Amino acid sequence: MTTTRRALVEAARGDRRLDLVIRGGQLVNVFTDEIQPADVGVFGDRIAVVDVGRAYGLEAPNEIDAAGMTLVPGMIDTHIHVESTMVTPPSYARAVLPFGTTTVVIDPHEIGNVMGQAGVAYMLRASAGLPLRTFVTVPSCVPAVDGVETAGARFDAAAIAEMLTWERVVGVAELMDYPGIVRQNEHIAAIVEAGLAAGTRLEGHAPLLAGRELNAYLAAGVDSEHESRDWPEMVEKLRLGMWVYGRENTFRTSAADLARALREVPEASNVAMCTDDIDPADLLAHGHLDRGLRVLIREGVPAARAIRYATLNGAVRYGLHDLGAIAPGRLADVVLLESLEEVRAHTVLAGGRVVVRAGRLAVEIAEPAPAPIGDSVRIGPLDAGAFALARAGAEGDRRLRVIAMDRRRTTRLEEVTLPFQGGQPRGPLPDDLVLLSVVPRHGQPHRPSLALLRGLNLTRGAIATTVAHDSHNLIVAGKTPEEMMQAVRVVADMGGGAALVAGGELLAGVRLPVAGLMSADPVEVVAAEVESFNARGRELGLWATSPVLAISSLALSVAPFVRITDLGVVDVLTQQFVEMFVD
Amino acid sequence: MTTTRRALVEAARGDRRLDLVIRGGQLVNVFTDEIQPADVGVFGDRIAVVDVGRAYGLEAPNEIDAAGMTLVPGMIDTHIHVESTMVTPPSYARAVLPFGTTTVVIDPHEIGNVMGQAGVAYMLRASAGLPLRTFVTVPSCVPAVDGVETAGARFDAAAIAEMLTWERVVGVAELMDYPGIVRQNEHIAAIVEAGLAAGTRLEGHAPLLAGRELNAYLAAGVDSEHESRDWPEMVEKLRLGMWVYGRENTFRTSAADLARALREVPEASNVAMCTDDIDPADLLAHGHLDRGLRVLIREGVPAARAIRYATLNGAVRYGLHDLGAIAPGRLADVVLLESLEEVRAHTVLAGGRVVVRAGRLAVEIAEPAPAPIGDSVRIGPLDAGAFALARAGAEGDRRLRVIAMDRRRTTRLEEVTLPFQGGQPRGPLPDDLVLLSVVPRHGQPHRPSLALLRGLNLTRGAIATTVAHDSHNLIVAGKTPEEMMQAVRVVADMGGGAALVAGGELLAGVRLPVAGLMSADPVEVVAAEVESFNARGRELGLWATSPVLAISSLALSVAPFVRITDLGVVDVLTQQFVEMFVD
Repeated sequence: MTTTRRALVEAARGDRRLDLVIRGGQLVNVFTDEIQPADVGVFGDRIAVVDVGRAYGLEAPNEIDAAGMTLVPGMIDTHIHVESTMVTPPSYARAVLPFGTTTVVIDPHEIGNVMGQAGVAYMLRASAGLPLRTFVTVPSCVPAVDGVETAGARFDAAAIAEMLTWERVVGVAELMDYPGIVRQNEHIAAIVEAGLAAGTRLEGHAPLLAGRELNAYLAAGVDSEHESRDWPEMVEKLRLGMWVYGRENTFRTSAADLARALREVPEASNVAMCTDDIDPADLLAHGHLDRGLRVLIREGVPAARAIRYATLNGAVRYGLHDLGAIAPGRLADVVLLESLEEVRAHTVLAGGRVVVRAGRLAVEIAEPAPAPIGDSVRIGPLDAGAFALARAGAEGDRRLRVIAMDRRRTTRLEEVTLPFQGGQPRGPLPDDLVLLSVVPRHGQPHRPSLALLRGLNLTRGAIATTVAHDSHNLIVAGKTPEEMMQAVRVVADMGGGAALVAGGELLAGVRLPVAGLMSADPVEVVAAEVESFNARGRELGLWATSPVLAISSLALSVAPFVRITDLGVVDVLTQQFVEMFVD
Repeated sequence: MTTTRRALVEAARGDRRLDLVIRGGQLVNVFTDEIQPADVGVFGDRIAVVDVGRAYGLEAPNEIDAAGMTLVPGMIDTHIHVESTMVTPPSYARAVLPFGTTTVVIDPHEIGNVMGQAGVAYMLRASAGLPLRTFVTVPSCVPAVDGVETAGARFDAAAIAEMLTWERVVGVAELMDYPGIVRQNEHIAAIVEAGLAAGTRLEGHAPLLAGRELNAYLAAGVDSEHESRDWPEMVEKLRLGMWVYGRENTFRTSAADLARALREVPEASNVAMCTDDIDPADLLAHGHLDRGLRVLIREGVPAARAIRYATLNGAVRYGLHDLGAIAPGRLADVVLLESLEEVRAHTVLAGGRVVVRAGRLAVEIAEPAPAPIGDSVRIGPLDAGAFALARAGAEGDRRLRVIAMDRRRTTRLEEVTLPFQGGQPRGPLPDDLVLLSVVPRHGQPHRPSLALLRGLNLTRGAIATTVAHDSHNLIVAGKTPEEMMQAVRVVADMGGGAALVAGGELLAGVRLPVAGLMSADPVEVVAAEVESFNARGRELGLWATSPVLAISSLALSVAPFVRITDLGVVDVLTQQFVEMFVD
């Protein structure tokens, strides 16, 4: 129900019955950093009256007893990719509301790479009217780097400008091609210009960027960031006026660094919180924005201030004037925490409606739009030969280049000597190597790329997945071409997802039929599949935090320092292709 | 010159020559509240690079030596009426730039009351391209109270909505009819609705509003305020999420209260600074936004924080993302203070151009648009009889109502007994009384209103002025109808302004031919006229801060508790007219 303003004002001044009173709690005031006793009167979907000090004796037919609870505004996540949680927006909403997140600003750039504007439009349709308010930033780097890979789509400045006019769109999403922006490469500079012309927020992504290059990135108009690697980097960015988003997720933890950075400066208002990417099992186990807030509080940030970062400041960043605070006139997104320090949500209201009670979802959330399930895995005719290492006429020892991955998933080029016979390697691969390939799956006509990978630690079998950042072709790694081919077939048959095979047997699978990235199932179902997959993966030696994603970032052509795309092995810094054979 | 973004980025990263370096100063970082050595590189109209710690060795053909100086962003005034300074926007710009104000958000509601939309449009035209960046909030209460007065125009919701689409318009200006909003009177509620529909800022005006009525005003969607009368009022408003603007001007001082309020709360980000109304002589003598900042700093607000309130926070309030900070990519509005504590500007840059040097204006500022001089004083045929107290058949002692004004300009109804003979008062008025009238000057056909006034302290003669808030008819007060008529004639002959007459002689005049509110002359000329007027006024007993405005607010139908409009004497609380004769 949408509140008519007149009735809301009448309820606020006391001439109309309130719908709901939240009574007896302590309120975190995100404007003043105070924590004070206050009752809150709700009318329709908005807050009508905040009774600091409990002087008004508010009454309503519905009451929530907040004794012993702390009231905080619904939390605002300033940057996430729903696809990382492998579920559609409604399932995502069901999963994160119990943790107290009521608003997310999503960057649908995974599905954008697969389905183009139709993918972004689907994410908008699929999030329309959810109790989890969903705003969209338009994916800016589709594909991540123009020219070294092919994705399912390509967004130029005109496409970005068009999407910026869509409803609930609040910015241009993380401009990952920061070298291109600093250098003012034409394609990406035009996209930034489209954002500036629209007067919208330009979201950044600039790990390790510092000094004059950081100044240049800011001068270009991009003024937020969530990729800082340590606290001095954050301090430099804060001082230059860049918004720094703390981030705590499955893969990266920066909240402790943020707490440390904040001790360096008397005050910083350009701070917000995001989660970016969370694995489904990890989400259920460790929470959402609350996770980073626990770290901030543990590291000495006053609790009220930490809450402000995850609420009001996100609203300020995006100009969401109706959100981010418990104040008269704002939308009644309110979280009752049973522990402020632990940031543990008991009751969650979205638009005045109780959506979470005793920590559990209390409402039905339907799919507002049918998920596009079907033909997102479009690969040409293929057999195991595509993955066989071969070079016509090669005999004896040959030097080959190898992508070597360390435990931080940083990659470098190394070399290896392999014995060849009749154009093919003699005998099995050395224990420390696997074959790695990216199979075009967006209907491109070309053959898969191929490389050698060191450091995956896969002892046998093969892993394949359509979660292959950011172009999301089909990436596969394995000990033998035959097992790789089998894994690819399983993934294709599932219409997308991940498969783990060994010795001719399917050990585990995760079904992601929506664009090969998401499932319409509940997050619990997907999480169970992922956990089972990860357990089997660990048995085969995969060491990643989430083995199902062990190879997913190896196709990310902006991550240091060597990656493989559907077009070949790429030296990230030079953006040049690298030949497999040294000679 | 407008910077092309590409060249700016090149200059930022060091691949293109900067235009200007500001070297050797201490920079107030409004993001972090730090004060640190920093050089600033400017390219075109924007800041390219901020070199905190001076590591880059910035060079440029132009340099400003900032040794011993403190660099702060150009200041942003969140709410002013240019008309109060009695000059047109270009003259106003010339006057305030030397104090370090580089951006103003104006509310042209005085000229709006006189000229309607054409007046608002003139203020936009007259401020286009000035080095003083001028944004407009659309006057919301024209007239102040619908129904008890007639102005030169009437803005309904449709007119407001239309003006909200104009360029440089950033909000709906102070919604003074707060009782009407709390009660949701149709006319003003529709105007608020127009603002909400446009997604723009809704500026408030709510002195002494508290408790549930304050909640109701906020629930209506209005969320800023600059009229708080003391610090507890400010604290209540800050806690409810209302923006509180500190204000220090000719008539009101609230900066000390603001400093006191800020000691009550751990933190408040919803604070900005404004001047609202400044008399021309007072502006030259005591400054602009710097005046309030001096008070804040003297009262214990850390200087960097005080600067933040007058810069970044104003930009945040209105979403002016290019302004409010010295940071890469922002417009190069920079002030070099020779004293931070005294907030004394030495050099001011607007858009990278030096506009003030050694405290003096260093550029020519032309009138971007001709001022509408002429026919704004349109009064019907009139003679002294219009101001004569008369009642057909009145004989002997009669009880009459009197508007009694105290030293805070608060008015109350009192009564007096006057002897009548032949329908007219017998003998001169008692010493403590004067006649008071509002003469329609917008071409209305009706006759002037008439009342008795106590407390003005005018010993002889008459004062008349077209500055008569807010409908700006012609208000006149005097000891005799004849002197009142003379004063009215002088004002009409000048095409607007103020006149002081006594004994048939013109003692002083202030010429305000632009809408009867402003002069196109330099502020020094107007200030001299005002000072001369005020000196003569004090000789005649007028005690106001600025005697030229001694009667200007007596027509303000929203000020407590009794006022006179062109339609009669109004009881402000009930908005009912009051008869002059008790019986």
